[in-house]
Amino acid sequence: MSQGFAIVLSGPSGAGKSTLFHRLKEDFPQLLFSISCTTRPPRPGEKDGVDYHFYSQELFHHGIQRGDFLEYANVHGNFYGTPKAPLLNAIQKGRIMVLDIDVQGARQMRTLLPPDFLQDHMEFVFVAPPSLEILEERLRKRGTETPESLKRRLENARKELEAWPEYQYLVVNDQLDKAANELKAILLAATCKTQRRTWPTTP
Amino acid sequence: MSQGFAIVLSGPSGAGKSTLFHRLKEDFPQLLFSISCTTRPPRPGEKDGVDYHFYSQELFHHGIQRGDFLEYANVHGNFYGTPKAPLLNAIQKGRIMVLDIDVQGARQMRTLLPPDFLQDHMEFVFVAPPSLEILEERLRKRGTETPESLKRRLENARKELEAWPEYQYLVVNDQLDKAANELKAILLAATCKTQRRTWPTTP
Repeated sequence: MSQGFAIVLSGPSGAGKSTLFHRLKEDFPQLLFSISCTTRPPRPGEKDGVDYHFYSQELFHHGIQRGDFLEYANVHGNFYGTPKAPLLNAIQKGRIMVLDIDVQGARQMRTLLPPDFLQDHMEFVFVAPPSLEILEERLRKRGTETPESLKRRLENARKELEAWPEYQYLVVNDQLDKAANELKAILLAATCKTQRRTWPTTP
Repeated sequence: MSQGFAIVLSGPSGAGKSTLFHRLKEDFPQLLFSISCTTRPPRPGEKDGVDYHFYSQELFHHGIQRGDFLEYANVHGNFYGTPKAPLLNAIQKGRIMVLDIDVQGARQMRTLLPPDFLQDHMEFVFVAPPSLEILEERLRKRGTETPESLKRRLENARKELEAWPEYQYLVVNDQLDKAANELKAILLAATCKTQRRTWPTTP
């Protein structure tokens, strides 16, 4: 039994984060996934409380003022944020929560959260493709991108990738099995950190 | 490919460190094991350079003066020390070295090594039995201890065990498979730390 904590995963889209999330569940079925809040309207098929918590502008701004978000950003007029309460709740219950957060959001968290809280309850992992060239190749092969969207994606990826040294761990998604094993090991090792354990474990 | 580093394992005798060492080799066949230097005479069957590096008092003192040891101690008139050169050599070659060091030795290393070196190249893991009572039970069952040696061992174990919060990781050896998996995960996660990786990994 170990104290609860959260693992922040960042990395450019196309690095394979969502596939890795699913692989994590194999070894950690009790894993919780953070659900973001947003003011953008639901797309067809998206469910409130499953894909996102859909907030009105007013509710979101109220949340900002109350300090309800671990991090938030305004993207083209829509707000996106990570709610604090589910994380604190998970930690209190000794659970592990995974958060998919971009580089800017992770910076906000490292700046705003108290150092003790970061040390005790947070792990920061960057997931990267082997190189920008390989990411480009992967995105091209998908065939779902227009030349403009591909260009924008790669430009964003280039900027995000510069941030990898800010993280505690780097997982390079070259072979999926290898990357999944590394991520699983990072999670299991995180449960073994002394700040999350007690001894003796039996009376 | 990751930069080399060393993993220090401490814990009372009877916690199962040597069994865990062997289990580590299953996943990390390239693992190196540090061989200590000592001034005590070889016991029957012990080989120089395999079990220990057997040093004369003069050679050992010379080594102390030159700063050749990561840590050393005088135990009942015999000196024991961990040589620095093989560790630096292993790190330079990108290898992983395991060091079996007692609590006092680990304290010396944390005090004497530069903070950057500790951050970049060292991991400290404590291996503990679930409780002192269970350790006593295990040692009794072995049947190899006299009442006096059992008492001395348990007294030493009690003191060593107080040091577990000084370490980065705590592995409780309750079930061997579980403990071995945790130790393997700590090692694999250690290879994923950003200070030991570079990106991009391909040109």
